[in-house]
Amino acid sequence: MRNIKLVLEYDGAPYFGFQRQPRHKTVQEALEKALSGLLNRPVKITAASGRTDTGVHARGQVVNFKTDAPMDGLSLRKGLNALLPRDIAVLSVEEVPASFHARYSARQKTYEYQIWNQAVRSPLRASRAFHVTGPLNLARMRSAARKLIGRHDFRSFCAADPSGKERENTVRTLSRFEVLKKGPLLRVVVTGDGFLYKMVRNLVGTLLEIGSGKMSLEDLDTILKARDRRKAGKTAPAHGLTLISVDYEV
Amino acid sequence: MRNIKLVLEYDGAPYFGFQRQPRHKTVQEALEKALSGLLNRPVKITAASGRTDTGVHARGQVVNFKTDAPMDGLSLRKGLNALLPRDIAVLSVEEVPASFHARYSARQKTYEYQIWNQAVRSPLRASRAFHVTGPLNLARMRSAARKLIGRHDFRSFCAADPSGKERENTVRTLSRFEVLKKGPLLRVVVTGDGFLYKMVRNLVGTLLEIGSGKMSLEDLDTILKARDRRKAGKTAPAHGLTLISVDYEV
Repeated sequence: MRNIKLVLEYDGAPYFGFQRQPRHKTVQEALEKALSGLLNRPVKITAASGRTDTGVHARGQVVNFKTDAPMDGLSLRKGLNALLPRDIAVLSVEEVPASFHARYSARQKTYEYQIWNQAVRSPLRASRAFHVTGPLNLARMRSAARKLIGRHDFRSFCAADPSGKERENTVRTLSRFEVLKKGPLLRVVVTGDGFLYKMVRNLVGTLLEIGSGKMSLEDLDTILKARDRRKAGKTAPAHGLTLISVDYEV
Repeated sequence: MRNIKLVLEYDGAPYFGFQRQPRHKTVQEALEKALSGLLNRPVKITAASGRTDTGVHARGQVVNFKTDAPMDGLSLRKGLNALLPRDIAVLSVEEVPASFHARYSARQKTYEYQIWNQAVRSPLRASRAFHVTGPLNLARMRSAARKLIGRHDFRSFCAADPSGKERENTVRTLSRFEVLKKGPLLRVVVTGDGFLYKMVRNLVGTLLEIGSGKMSLEDLDTILKARDRRKAGKTAPAHGLTLISVDYEV
């Protein structure tokens, strides 16, 4: 069997997240349908970040699947892009060693969260940036982000997993967490070795409460120590979030 | 009567252009409905660029209207943004002299046309950039754009006006026409003292045929001299086009 890695871009707005669910439109279902149709046999994919929520976008989601179909990479890419709906595209196709697993082989993931920080909403940004009207203290948000870089127990930033699984290990390491600004557009970029359920949106929500003055920088230590979701800020809405890339050992 | 100037942003995708039309959803209709509702009296607006086509976006469309309503600018902006659909926003409100006319007082307009130039389409760009798969010779496109700066008879780039009006004067002056590139995203920016019907989309279509090698730089002189729409390149699709700004004498 060959092992094929795909990099995907999609607009998450019309989907109920990535992972297959009964009676809901999902990215996985659309992709498996296109793959099975193209290769003329059932295909089951594995995603780097399978539990991304309803409405979250991707510019670099990674999946892999095993197949005995002989189709070359370019034909696969072209065929899939012709069959997939307009809001999903395969950016690249690569044959990888049998041991490659989109989720377990992942070393780091990078997410970006967009915030449109202006009094007036922006119709041309509305589908991909969270609109925040009040003033934000960028310096404080950046200090908070810097404080969270490194190895921490992020249990306070972890929403209850809908699968009901008890999460034993909530320790994660962030190697990058910064807030970029260009005019009214803020981009929060975060890279880590893994993210808990809704962790990025909870981190962004907390940064926003620190930026607006509702929380102080000192509160951050209290939140981390509490290991209690109720202590952190509100969950920022899904439509501002994009999975940018997944890194693997080369 | 007071004279009020509004600057608008909108996503043109769901609208049949700016100007009111029977049995079609237009930006003008949505705006006049919100204004009339807020001010509790009928309001008729005039737009800088009223004939923008179906699907064209704006980040700086300008309109004005006369009213005896005493409402201040901030309340007008907030009230309108609360009443308008999500895909239209009022960016600013300003009281202007009685002589100000959004169309006739305009000195220059700037449009931007986005092209996504990559083999694979981009779902996150698809709604606002025209996807061009083949290679484009950027140097040739830039030379063509430079050639068109200045005062020319642009009749060859003018589509038949649906109003049926005979256009006497098709001479316009472009003060800026350039192609910016950032990765696979090209942005064609053009500023002029006025634009004929579909002129920007016809200019972009012609630049694209020059970039792809279907037309030569020399063809440009022939096209200009011909004063015949059939000589120029294809009309680029509307969804790539955004009206960026309208400038007035200060």
